[in-house]
Amino acid sequence: MSEIKIDTINALPEGFSSKINADGAEALATLQSQSGAGNDFLGWLNLPNEYSDADLAEIENATRVFEGCEFVVCIGIGGSYLGAKAVVEALSDSFAAFKPSKAPRILFAGQNISEDYLFELQELLADSRFGIIVISKSGTTTEPAIAFRLLKAQLEANVGKKEAANLIVAITDARRGALRQLATEEGYRTFVIADNVGGRFSVLSPVGLLPIAVAGFDIRALLKGASVMAAKTSADSDENAALTYAKARNALYRSGKKIEILVNYNPKLHFLAEWWKQLYGESEGKEHKGIFPASVDNSTDLHSMGQWIQDGERSIFETVITVEEQRHSLSIPSDEANLDGLNYIASRRIDEVNKMAELGTRIAHIDGGVPNLKISLPKIDEYNLGALLYFFEKGCGISGYMLGVNPFNQPGVEDYKRNMFALLRKPGYEAESEAIAKKL
Amino acid sequence: MSEIKIDTINALPEGFSSKINADGAEALATLQSQSGAGNDFLGWLNLPNEYSDADLAEIENATRVFEGCEFVVCIGIGGSYLGAKAVVEALSDSFAAFKPSKAPRILFAGQNISEDYLFELQELLADSRFGIIVISKSGTTTEPAIAFRLLKAQLEANVGKKEAANLIVAITDARRGALRQLATEEGYRTFVIADNVGGRFSVLSPVGLLPIAVAGFDIRALLKGASVMAAKTSADSDENAALTYAKARNALYRSGKKIEILVNYNPKLHFLAEWWKQLYGESEGKEHKGIFPASVDNSTDLHSMGQWIQDGERSIFETVITVEEQRHSLSIPSDEANLDGLNYIASRRIDEVNKMAELGTRIAHIDGGVPNLKISLPKIDEYNLGALLYFFEKGCGISGYMLGVNPFNQPGVEDYKRNMFALLRKPGYEAESEAIAKKL
Repeated sequence: MSEIKIDTINALPEGFSSKINADGAEALATLQSQSGAGNDFLGWLNLPNEYSDADLAEIENATRVFEGCEFVVCIGIGGSYLGAKAVVEALSDSFAAFKPSKAPRILFAGQNISEDYLFELQELLADSRFGIIVISKSGTTTEPAIAFRLLKAQLEANVGKKEAANLIVAITDARRGALRQLATEEGYRTFVIADNVGGRFSVLSPVGLLPIAVAGFDIRALLKGASVMAAKTSADSDENAALTYAKARNALYRSGKKIEILVNYNPKLHFLAEWWKQLYGESEGKEHKGIFPASVDNSTDLHSMGQWIQDGERSIFETVITVEEQRHSLSIPSDEANLDGLNYIASRRIDEVNKMAELGTRIAHIDGGVPNLKISLPKIDEYNLGALLYFFEKGCGISGYMLGVNPFNQPGVEDYKRNMFALLRKPGYEAESEAIAKKL
Repeated sequence: MSEIKIDTINALPEGFSSKINADGAEALATLQSQSGAGNDFLGWLNLPNEYSDADLAEIENATRVFEGCEFVVCIGIGGSYLGAKAVVEALSDSFAAFKPSKAPRILFAGQNISEDYLFELQELLADSRFGIIVISKSGTTTEPAIAFRLLKAQLEANVGKKEAANLIVAITDARRGALRQLATEEGYRTFVIADNVGGRFSVLSPVGLLPIAVAGFDIRALLKGASVMAAKTSADSDENAALTYAKARNALYRSGKKIEILVNYNPKLHFLAEWWKQLYGESEGKEHKGIFPASVDNSTDLHSMGQWIQDGERSIFETVITVEEQRHSLSIPSDEANLDGLNYIASRRIDEVNKMAELGTRIAHIDGGVPNLKISLPKIDEYNLGALLYFFEKGCGISGYMLGVNPFNQPGVEDYKRNMFALLRKPGYEAESEAIAKKL
């Protein structure tokens, strides 16, 4: 079986050397021995191997709850949104919304506070029997709590309180919190968010697995790919792709490359990049340091960000995800008139042209002073996505330790919440409310 | 009528002073007098006032070509994609794909070279009578040319060559080029891409206006908003919001802020930010300088990039687009049990919470060392979007001149194309093919 590979040829700065190799080895050892900062949040390390057949069957069986539902709304934010979104989008037809679907369609809510978004969602669901997967450890995070309050009331109005309870699955803390209490009182089916798995590392837990399974995808293959990748990324070796990635990006950062652009040539990977941004941005953006994570969808964005990347400040590097094999096969037709001049590529696969755009771009960017890492993905399927997700998670843990931060906390996320609660005069925030009122 | 405003309070670095003001005034004068670099590409300056009633009626009438079509595929890349995409997404229902539509649904193609995307699009359009708007000055740009070749052949197979010609509208050069020649031969209805309007400044030309009109939106209101903004942004005055924006971002860049993050709290503005990235990135990313344009959709991305923005390298500033009035009205319901603790905001508008998230975040980011500019948009409608588009275009022209580059060319975009043609062994690229083969 082909596998995910990383290519750092021509990408590494001078000084990628004994120091980086030693730092990488140390960071990996810290991670594997679970002895570093944030080591109470390392449950993700073994997630791919943690589920028994019965555990997985329980998730798969839970999808039956939604039989007959056209829509299932997945309510969550951050890691309780991006993992499922990334995998579902990667595996779905580009025009799935306009095509018939056997599985329920997954919609997302609680990932914003947009009045129009929620209004228009409720309009769509008017009078319908729909499903809800609500994901929140505490049950009180503002965005998902608002969405759940609205949609729970709507569902109960549509189908009655009893049937609504059958159509709601909660993924939450094992014992504590508002959502756990509600689930117990109402009799919702539940899955557990473990204490030692942070949001951005939760895609291979029920948080990601249940919505992915509901959308009709194979979670066993996803976990299998992750499990194989886990086995391959535990040792200090040149074959450890996650370690190589962590070392390369830290070497580039130390050499002054401050922005990493994750590049794809397959639009289905758009939300994979969004998931990656949370993973790396939230893990590393601390203590006034960390690579700024950005992304482009090519060749679309070669006609947008391409100029900047080619000729702007030389503060960037790129990590290109190349997908070796496409799902479908389509060639360029011949045309007698050939006014567009394309006959020189007639009968060639579209993907062959895409690959030459990719290679041509890599060469142009390297020539222009933009180091390029390349990650090869054999194809976009559950197995390889599972491997890719784990690869990035493992690379992130190593990379964060190399940077010298705790990659598993996110203290800065609280700042806006505290201000928001103060501004909304939430009970318990009286002092903050007074302080912020003075400030304004 | 309320209007777009910019707020730079607390955002400007020390040294925002006479030098910046003088540079801004000079850049504005260069732009208005059409005497600077790239001055043969300033057709966009007067676009909002250029159309007669008859011109607009011609565009509006052209939408009738597509009567009875469920789908119209808009084929184009870069500026021939992003402007229409940004406006259509901003004005559409968040769940439009799942709701009935009176107007045809606009799909996009030719903005990538994804084999799966094109295959799945053709699958969707199998046996159907659909419309095509093909946008290309030359008719030979690889991405749209491939998509058009495929879809033209499909449409002709579906409805016959004669009817297909009635369902294709070409937007292209007035006289020259492959697409113009084809349109003449086949009898397509056409609109003109003027020589003096570059792609990224073309949204208010037929390139943007036709797809926007086909989607059912009011292009006269769009142009009216732009026209009013044009009148307000021609003089060197504190009331000139585009000038203020250009000065502020250059002052911040000179003070070491290398990344500008365009922030929205309304997911419908996602593609407005993508359009903005092309506008600024392609205009300014030259000669190894220019602000790196990035974007976030909040509050979604507060749970993703939020940590980095709060605590990462202090190399960033934010430009927040706030939307004063929402389209719909929705309040938070009360809940007797109040397990989620939200009753303190029960009966308040969702948007009020969103606004406090926004204000709380601005305060947290400013406190954390991230300067914040704020652009107020009265609401998301055609008039205000037209004003906003023109505001950003004008700000970009001024800003590029302040940076000391030609904001109206994009020499770096050719580099990947040259390599791609060499790799594909395109006739005429024999020397490049040989050179690149040696290199590999």
